[in-house]
Amino acid sequence: MGITIKQIAADLNLAVSTVSKALGDSYEISAETKARVFEYATKMDYKPNPYASSLKRGRSGNIAVVLPEVSDSFFSSAIDGIEKVAQEKGYHVMVYLTHEDVSREASIIREFRHGRVDGVLMSVSAGEKKPDHLQDLSASDIPVVFFDRVYEEIQMTNVVTNDFESGYLAAKHLLSKKCKRLAFLSLEGNLEIISHRQKGFEKALSESGIEGREHSIIVLGNDEQENLKKLASKFKSKTRPDGVVGSVEKVAMQVYSTCHALKLSIPKDVKVIAFSHLAIASLLNPSLTTITQPAFDMGKMAATLLFKSLDKKGMKPETIVLKSELIERDSTRM
Amino acid sequence: MGITIKQIAADLNLAVSTVSKALGDSYEISAETKARVFEYATKMDYKPNPYASSLKRGRSGNIAVVLPEVSDSFFSSAIDGIEKVAQEKGYHVMVYLTHEDVSREASIIREFRHGRVDGVLMSVSAGEKKPDHLQDLSASDIPVVFFDRVYEEIQMTNVVTNDFESGYLAAKHLLSKKCKRLAFLSLEGNLEIISHRQKGFEKALSESGIEGREHSIIVLGNDEQENLKKLASKFKSKTRPDGVVGSVEKVAMQVYSTCHALKLSIPKDVKVIAFSHLAIASLLNPSLTTITQPAFDMGKMAATLLFKSLDKKGMKPETIVLKSELIERDSTRM
Repeated sequence: MGITIKQIAADLNLAVSTVSKALGDSYEISAETKARVFEYATKMDYKPNPYASSLKRGRSGNIAVVLPEVSDSFFSSAIDGIEKVAQEKGYHVMVYLTHEDVSREASIIREFRHGRVDGVLMSVSAGEKKPDHLQDLSASDIPVVFFDRVYEEIQMTNVVTNDFESGYLAAKHLLSKKCKRLAFLSLEGNLEIISHRQKGFEKALSESGIEGREHSIIVLGNDEQENLKKLASKFKSKTRPDGVVGSVEKVAMQVYSTCHALKLSIPKDVKVIAFSHLAIASLLNPSLTTITQPAFDMGKMAATLLFKSLDKKGMKPETIVLKSELIERDSTRM
Repeated sequence: MGITIKQIAADLNLAVSTVSKALGDSYEISAETKARVFEYATKMDYKPNPYASSLKRGRSGNIAVVLPEVSDSFFSSAIDGIEKVAQEKGYHVMVYLTHEDVSREASIIREFRHGRVDGVLMSVSAGEKKPDHLQDLSASDIPVVFFDRVYEEIQMTNVVTNDFESGYLAAKHLLSKKCKRLAFLSLEGNLEIISHRQKGFEKALSESGIEGREHSIIVLGNDEQENLKKLASKFKSKTRPDGVVGSVEKVAMQVYSTCHALKLSIPKDVKVIAFSHLAIASLLNPSLTTITQPAFDMGKMAATLLFKSLDKKGMKPETIVLKSELIERDSTRM
């Protein structure tokens, strides 16, 4: 084992906190002192202890939140929950948007290795999985908590909702409203939350005994115009769904636009239920039946776990499951 | 004048870029080299030229966006515009939320003085103005561009929309729909954009010759429940407005909620027009007539001005005015 911060401090006749801050490139330390500490640490082959480095390193006082987007109301509420906790702890929150671009996500994460942030809260982007950067991040000494969109192949600390059950309940809800041809609106890119929701949907259908070919999975992407084209063609066809589960908020809004454009009535012609955290769901035409995730609480929980790990060092992989709520409104009225 | 980076590089037999990065604490440079450079720079009394420091300093590669919130669709679109430009330039965008809290805004900005970011894009928070931190920021060597919510008492680079004219046109629109008792829904905290919108509104009323006491200014705050109480009491009174201009998106949604709760019909009983960038304005019940600001373009323009100044150093105070668009929908139908 190499030299410790304590030894460096003793040898250079500096306070331990000064050495720690100097090694963390803190602006509180003069360039001269930094130079002395850097030089001596290099000479003595100082290596930070990865399991306690966040305590020994001068902290940046920042935590990063990495998200696909902020226009989805789930994410803006989750940020509010995260900020509530961070502010109490005196930390700054920096928000980074990936726009569902995995290479952008990787490049953002690469920056985190150099002390820019003390911890990361993350909801992974859809899109082709090249999980190397997530593996690197989880192997680094920066604590990370995933929320909502997690990556199950790596053992991490996760905060999720009961997605399978919610997908199941959404389909059951439509079946109870006498829907005969259900569609699940999926999102391309192999997100695990979407696949859990879809599996719950499929379980409800197989239990219902209705023939599988009456139902459909419609995979939508990031391009709104393309999605609207795909939906219009599906909703003009003879196999038009009479009940739709939107796996995320924006696809539900695209179904609304499509039905408005084609003069199809929601809920008479098509019933719609969607995973959505939209504050104004009740003001839509018609008001939207939602599976509402506890977004604010998820953000709070994820941030709380992160700070617990920052305070105590080390983090045990665990998955916290919070419950979503089905709120019935006019879009699934019989 | 002290020693230059070029001289340091020559004296230490290093590349100029290496010295520059070392002085900027870049992670690309080894601790050993940093130590050599720091030590020599200190010894030779190197002082960065404040007017060109962003060129000489190792850049952080970050720009900060300081906003009140992301749940307003104006801001989420503006972020998209900013990110488009930043990505082309190879910069990271970090989003900081003030939640309309001026002291929080001040504390965020204080962090920027230490090289954490190369430039700042900002929309100021409402609330009691203590503009010291804005003055400090504008006097610093960090380029700043304000957009939408600017602070006119300081000469800065601003990107705004034609708020006075839009407030005027919004009131004219309601008058043309035979509204007799107009209300302007203002936001507490002395934001200049709100006061411009209100002045435009008042000009249209004074031109119309309708008596002033038929009209009202309702000042709303940040607490949704308080706002709903205030609106309910106003909409239950004998002087209920029959036409409303919402100065921001959320107050318009609160009018919708109030009318739904009181079983007042929009547009029959109350016509509503609002400053809003909501993508789903057309899906509301009823669809909302909006003054739509070019949020994405404002973000793009603000970021473009910021990078222009980063490339060329120095920034001239100027105000760019982009035009908003009135989009008529069902909420003001006669």
